[in-house]
Amino acid sequence: MFIATLLIITAAALAADDSVPATSNVPGAQYPRVYADLRVSFRLRAPNAQKVQVQPGGGDNGLGQGPFDMAKGDDGVWTATIPPAVPGFHYYWFLIDGVPSNDPGSETYFGWGKQTSGVEIPEKGASFYAPQDVPHGEVHICWYPSKITQTTRRAYVYTPPDYDTNSSARYPVLYLQHGAGEDERGWHKQGRMNFIMDNLLAAKKATPMLVVMDRGYASRPGEAANKNSFGDVLLEEIIPLIDSKYRTIADRDHRAMAGLSMGGMQTMQIGLTHLDKFGWLGAFSAPTRNFDLKSSYNGVFTDAAAFNKQVHLLWLGAGTAETQIHDGAKSVHDALASAGIQNVFVESQGTAHEWQTWRRALNDFVPRLFVHAE
Amino acid sequence: MFIATLLIITAAALAADDSVPATSNVPGAQYPRVYADLRVSFRLRAPNAQKVQVQPGGGDNGLGQGPFDMAKGDDGVWTATIPPAVPGFHYYWFLIDGVPSNDPGSETYFGWGKQTSGVEIPEKGASFYAPQDVPHGEVHICWYPSKITQTTRRAYVYTPPDYDTNSSARYPVLYLQHGAGEDERGWHKQGRMNFIMDNLLAAKKATPMLVVMDRGYASRPGEAANKNSFGDVLLEEIIPLIDSKYRTIADRDHRAMAGLSMGGMQTMQIGLTHLDKFGWLGAFSAPTRNFDLKSSYNGVFTDAAAFNKQVHLLWLGAGTAETQIHDGAKSVHDALASAGIQNVFVESQGTAHEWQTWRRALNDFVPRLFVHAE
Repeated sequence: MFIATLLIITAAALAADDSVPATSNVPGAQYPRVYADLRVSFRLRAPNAQKVQVQPGGGDNGLGQGPFDMAKGDDGVWTATIPPAVPGFHYYWFLIDGVPSNDPGSETYFGWGKQTSGVEIPEKGASFYAPQDVPHGEVHICWYPSKITQTTRRAYVYTPPDYDTNSSARYPVLYLQHGAGEDERGWHKQGRMNFIMDNLLAAKKATPMLVVMDRGYASRPGEAANKNSFGDVLLEEIIPLIDSKYRTIADRDHRAMAGLSMGGMQTMQIGLTHLDKFGWLGAFSAPTRNFDLKSSYNGVFTDAAAFNKQVHLLWLGAGTAETQIHDGAKSVHDALASAGIQNVFVESQGTAHEWQTWRRALNDFVPRLFVHAE
Repeated sequence: MFIATLLIITAAALAADDSVPATSNVPGAQYPRVYADLRVSFRLRAPNAQKVQVQPGGGDNGLGQGPFDMAKGDDGVWTATIPPAVPGFHYYWFLIDGVPSNDPGSETYFGWGKQTSGVEIPEKGASFYAPQDVPHGEVHICWYPSKITQTTRRAYVYTPPDYDTNSSARYPVLYLQHGAGEDERGWHKQGRMNFIMDNLLAAKKATPMLVVMDRGYASRPGEAANKNSFGDVLLEEIIPLIDSKYRTIADRDHRAMAGLSMGGMQTMQIGLTHLDKFGWLGAFSAPTRNFDLKSSYNGVFTDAAAFNKQVHLLWLGAGTAETQIHDGAKSVHDALASAGIQNVFVESQGTAHEWQTWRRALNDFVPRLFVHAE
């Protein structure tokens, strides 16, 4: 009996010991911690609080439904260990007596229209978005004046590892957009797009290209807040800027657009109505609203032969755990396929409306780009 | 009497109306707001909190001493308007029943070893760190493998506006370090160094140069947390990396180092003991400890003639409102001057141990760089 008890205690101690600080933490922060079985421990000192909870960001967040109550210790420190999480990046915050509050141990990530905490849950065997011992491209923070918005705006521009050494080469360009409540930093910071690109390029699975990430919101001075002039900024300002500042191949056959969620809707809306500008399109987890084969996007789908000749790739996809968006995108795929419109539909198994779905989407999408354009 | 009362009300209404959202806010956030007289209003919804305060980050923060109590309205919203602040960038956070918590209306800024809120207070007539209608350089996020730390590290590298078009030109380099509790993002995000550089270059007040900002912390695997191997990483890894990836002029006469606070101490320690590597040095608000003319920095100050021949610039400075550090730096300047060691001492009037001091320092330091190096 004594020995059995001892073994149980030892097993518990070992289980406690296999946790490590999340890689999404600020340097030195010990919490949140992730266990080998993907349970996650959170911790916050709040001696005077009556109630502290962990709130995952959104209804299909891979941390679970929440909010998760934390327990208060005699030292005023609140703790919670939640059940195994889905691999990937998940937004969260604390509710301190109901007030949303960042975790001081977490780096912050712009989502939900503000800076929030986030936790990275490792996916076993998935190294495609990890920094590896391969040549690294760079992400340029590129400030530019926008006449349309009368502001100084900022693009993030990924250049491949050979961009600076191969100084006469010209490159195709992917315009890659974030989702609602996020900004131009999301694909780099949450999405780790630079490592995805580096790894694809090192494996010779992708054509060297630039990737331009800009803010998918734009307001003209005095314009109503619910009107978004991003399409005009993209077409009239961002693309000309990139084609003048970088060594691009400035034609539709060497220009792609993709985006996640709202960015996927923007890709469909802007891309499909400007096929003179874009030859390759990707909608990652884009909500589908009032899709109609005859009338949507200025009727671009009414002539399948013309569409198939013009559009080198139309990529649709979603996570299997974001049911409504997944099924909506699948129904668009089916309707297009039935009408003879070439397009691909790619599922991310077990992931929801979250960054792991979009990391996988980018990793699938990019190798298909610019492979037939001459 | 009626008219007098009306006038008072109108004046109060006008005073209330001249506030604008701080430029350091996330898009769309209305608070914090800054008044024309530089009072600042803060706001947080926390219906169940017993006490909410605004806590300026640090004892000589330009927002004032604090913490400032906020008042609770019937709607559960806490508000406070604090007296006129010192122009510049100030870290702050809320204390919700004593728990430090970010302001959801503020962008976050890495300081105090974590992501904190910050508020930008405009300085009348100071446009040197504002985005202006001039050519903009870029800030490259440059990931690299570090053998010393066994991690993937990240440098921020400013390239001047002509770097990409002037594709055969080579450039001198300034290595520019942040302070304790900050990281490689600070000079760009809090310091707005890119706009300072852009504006100086447009006015032809500075030599085109690269500016490299890296994380001033580095640990070898298994090394004690209080040991910092940043000097080794800088000398053995970062400088060779930059000289191989960018078109630099790779000699001491075209290489400068500067830093603020801890970064200023690192500049003195690393720079003055490696004069074969650096010809130009700047210590912004560097705390002075146990300075001795004969023995400090391996006795580099014992031969004034040799020092003056080697070192093209030794820049010391501080804000007049950071008394202890200011007086310490001034005493070093005086001791060096008395010994015939050429150096400059530059004061920032009315500012403390904060970013406005260091923006001004950079703006004074950069025009002095690389002007006599041949």
